[in-house]
Amino acid sequence: MVSRTPCIRTPHARAPHARAPDTARRSERARRAILAASMRLVGEVGYTGLTIEAIAARAGVGKQTIYRWWPSKAAVLLDAFTSAAARPEREQGVPDTGDLEADLKRVLRDTADEFADPEFEAPYRALAVAAAADAEVSARIRERLLEPARERYLRRLRSARDAGRIAPDADLPLAVELLTAPFQQRWLQRTGPLTPEFTDALVEQVLRGLAPR
Amino acid sequence: MVSRTPCIRTPHARAPHARAPDTARRSERARRAILAASMRLVGEVGYTGLTIEAIAARAGVGKQTIYRWWPSKAAVLLDAFTSAAARPEREQGVPDTGDLEADLKRVLRDTADEFADPEFEAPYRALAVAAAADAEVSARIRERLLEPARERYLRRLRSARDAGRIAPDADLPLAVELLTAPFQQRWLQRTGPLTPEFTDALVEQVLRGLAPR
Repeated sequence: MVSRTPCIRTPHARAPHARAPDTARRSERARRAILAASMRLVGEVGYTGLTIEAIAARAGVGKQTIYRWWPSKAAVLLDAFTSAAARPEREQGVPDTGDLEADLKRVLRDTADEFADPEFEAPYRALAVAAAADAEVSARIRERLLEPARERYLRRLRSARDAGRIAPDADLPLAVELLTAPFQQRWLQRTGPLTPEFTDALVEQVLRGLAPR
Repeated sequence: MVSRTPCIRTPHARAPHARAPDTARRSERARRAILAASMRLVGEVGYTGLTIEAIAARAGVGKQTIYRWWPSKAAVLLDAFTSAAARPEREQGVPDTGDLEADLKRVLRDTADEFADPEFEAPYRALAVAAAADAEVSARIRERLLEPARERYLRRLRSARDAGRIAPDADLPLAVELLTAPFQQRWLQRTGPLTPEFTDALVEQVLRGLAPR
């Protein structure tokens, strides 16, 4: 589950730094144009149809400009997605109002809303497909999107355990998998709709198994 | 979760029937060669690298022979996979020894063993990638693999509910998602190993949430 991920705001490691101000500004403009073009294009043509050539044409840069900074279309897209996802409200973690059930329901409903937005869904599906097919892409996505998201759920569950709402011996990492995997499966394998009824029932069922005994 | 699916044994709908015996035999031989070639090839080159040309060359048939029976490489692969998976032990459903926890642990451990076998894993990953990318492929895989598998878990859970082992108002379809999705997520997104410790803990945690109250 990628939603509300604390995203990486630093520019790409190979992006230009410490150059003459004008060059740096032009490079940054090109970088942003490339990222934006990759997000729009993948929504139009899908991951299989996405090419470095098409991204370059749409961004108004040469192919070599892209290859100077990124090794592959998956790398461009991952940067584009994490930049686009870096909004302040995503970085605050799962809310903690003291009501674990309400907080988790809120987050999963919000996440479902994001997945209903084609501008989010298309590039994220493209990344998920690339990751499923390729172990190296998968490792980068895990590190930059999945692990931070997992950590945010874990923090909220730990706080609930400390407050006595969850059994002290509960397996919290497994609980995160139970909360996120059925959502991901419905979405990625298209096995069911991401309705509020579904996400609410999911939270209730998982919490039932975590209650103090 | 596809493992132990009651598979479709009937030949592909467009496969030849009711022809002169020799022609039918030759066609059936070609059909089997094509299916076997697609399974071997996808393990060698991955789904992206798989082409109808390569399948035809490996099977010793012309490309047109393949296109006469199947519209796409995904369709060939789905038939190949369901034929290969049609072993009798798969068709008996989740075992019912009366001990729900033991039965589910057995099935998930067996499923993990299958996923550890590259001859199973490679074509199934290829199908999963194709399905994630393409809604039409996804619908076919859902109908032929995922739904029958889901139904087998559901039957076992219904029997447990009838025996009083599960709360009478438990949401059994959701329970199936909880049992299968974390396994699928670890596998497809490579977020963790499919160890017996994991599958056993998964079963225990899900059943804890289903216990009669």
